[in-house]
Amino acid sequence: MTILAELGERNVIEEIVKTVGTRVSTGEVLSYPDDAKDLLPKAPRLIVNVDGYGIDRLRLPWRDSSDIGWCAITGSVSDVIAKGGFPDAVLIALGLPPGYPLEELRKLAEGVKDAIDYYAIRLVGGDTNSSSEPWIAVTAIGFTPAKKPPTRKGLRVNDYIVVTGIYGAMGFAAIKGIEEAGRRHWVVERTKRPVAIKELSVVISSNYRWITASMDVSDGLGYTLQTLSIESDARILLTQPPLYEPSLIDECQGSMECVVKTAMSGGEEYGVVLGIRPEGLNNVVKDLEYYNIPFRVVGRVVDGEPGVFYGDKPLEFASWDQFKGWG
Amino acid sequence: MTILAELGERNVIEEIVKTVGTRVSTGEVLSYPDDAKDLLPKAPRLIVNVDGYGIDRLRLPWRDSSDIGWCAITGSVSDVIAKGGFPDAVLIALGLPPGYPLEELRKLAEGVKDAIDYYAIRLVGGDTNSSSEPWIAVTAIGFTPAKKPPTRKGLRVNDYIVVTGIYGAMGFAAIKGIEEAGRRHWVVERTKRPVAIKELSVVISSNYRWITASMDVSDGLGYTLQTLSIESDARILLTQPPLYEPSLIDECQGSMECVVKTAMSGGEEYGVVLGIRPEGLNNVVKDLEYYNIPFRVVGRVVDGEPGVFYGDKPLEFASWDQFKGWG
Repeated sequence: MTILAELGERNVIEEIVKTVGTRVSTGEVLSYPDDAKDLLPKAPRLIVNVDGYGIDRLRLPWRDSSDIGWCAITGSVSDVIAKGGFPDAVLIALGLPPGYPLEELRKLAEGVKDAIDYYAIRLVGGDTNSSSEPWIAVTAIGFTPAKKPPTRKGLRVNDYIVVTGIYGAMGFAAIKGIEEAGRRHWVVERTKRPVAIKELSVVISSNYRWITASMDVSDGLGYTLQTLSIESDARILLTQPPLYEPSLIDECQGSMECVVKTAMSGGEEYGVVLGIRPEGLNNVVKDLEYYNIPFRVVGRVVDGEPGVFYGDKPLEFASWDQFKGWG
Repeated sequence: MTILAELGERNVIEEIVKTVGTRVSTGEVLSYPDDAKDLLPKAPRLIVNVDGYGIDRLRLPWRDSSDIGWCAITGSVSDVIAKGGFPDAVLIALGLPPGYPLEELRKLAEGVKDAIDYYAIRLVGGDTNSSSEPWIAVTAIGFTPAKKPPTRKGLRVNDYIVVTGIYGAMGFAAIKGIEEAGRRHWVVERTKRPVAIKELSVVISSNYRWITASMDVSDGLGYTLQTLSIESDARILLTQPPLYEPSLIDECQGSMECVVKTAMSGGEEYGVVLGIRPEGLNNVVKDLEYYNIPFRVVGRVVDGEPGVFYGDKPLEFASWDQFKGWG
């Protein structure tokens, strides 16, 4: 088994570049192995984001290293999409132990490559480091023609709340535990390689006039709704559950309270929550349908203190804190 | 002593933002705590880079956490500058143990703030993670008006080689060891907070027609020269040492071979090595002098196989490999 210490830094980087590839767009000058990359803007506004991960913490038992590479790229790209940005490029910083197997590095790089191809983006920069605990940090750079990318703070009374994506798999794992979740084919399948829907950036950027707020569901749907409510100083009243995994009905023995709580818990689900002015709802719905993006209008913004209510009860959900754990 | 697990993720981020601050430029919409940031380009071409660090590995005994924050920002900004980019913004991903002291986090953030102020840039994104070994990854984004930012590959026969910066302190530490280095005031002072010179981006971007290659000295001067030589498939003949620490003369008991070897070893020295067409040398020299940037014309590109020669001998130096260590 070859390990990174035998390869040396230069060859570790070569290995990643060989697997992932680099692509230089027209008019650009710098490329691997230059220490910095030049990019020509593809729209009038940049959208940028960084997300880091402990590689072992992304490792659900059914995720191999390639899935982790996929997940790390998806997480960062998703935030760009949620702001109406068209993802263009990523930069990756890696920390790996000197004893890390080359084979696992290759798999990780293959997952990165899969994601980069899927999102039609490219790798434009990277750095490798020695670290006892392996980690990955991904910076995503995108461009948007939108004059006002949606913030977290814009919800106003009467806005409709739209949730894209199908929920419940990660929530099941959060509530029932990883071991139990591993026995459910539908959970494994849904959580192995979560997907951010690229076409959402078209919908969001072309409807920015009516989209008052937008946030991706990387930290769980309940947490996302609550955060939008607090940041916008606005009350959200849910009247319908989001789209959820059909298997949840059985798992919850028909209890809708259980279905909703499970759908609201979890994380790494890369739908978005949108606030939409009433006059724009039809346009947004039409565009979401055009791109076959699964969604549901789940409720509205109502008068009152910040908070998220489902019917007449405050919303319940489990959420993850990097330093505190599940709570 | 307060630790991060007591604060929770949200408060950890608040703590950093409170210390470092955020700054929204005219026309920009998104800001903390949005998951992505929008930027309006400030020149026709972006220059981007990512650099990661094990926080404990940046920790020379005389560097506190604030120095480490400084160093991490400087390392990434330096690569943008070396390509003629005007640094505009950074994104920071952090991995810290739940037991990490709040006080050390604050110091780290203060060092980041110092660097951000010094380079007149801003923090536009961040992410925190739990990690047994603390790490930091910094993405720097800059803009340049240069049509052809210099690569590593452009050296041509007859080019002059110009080295900016003053060398020897990190090389002394690399060769003599950290303990010995810690007893030298001049080494401690020079290596505590290495500086990248911002004005270099003006010199490089306005002279890009004559600058055939450029690379920053983050991995040691010898390594940088060697890399430029190999990547450009060109032989470098050095006829003068770079500017070096005056104390080296005593330390080397007058041996110029020792002085040069020490100056060529080391790393985290954020000067640049430039290849310059003969017809452009006067312009570049004039600009370097105008901005008071320390530099020396150290040699030229000559006919022959790739390699770096000092007089008639191949250059000797120590260099660092992330996965192999010093070699």
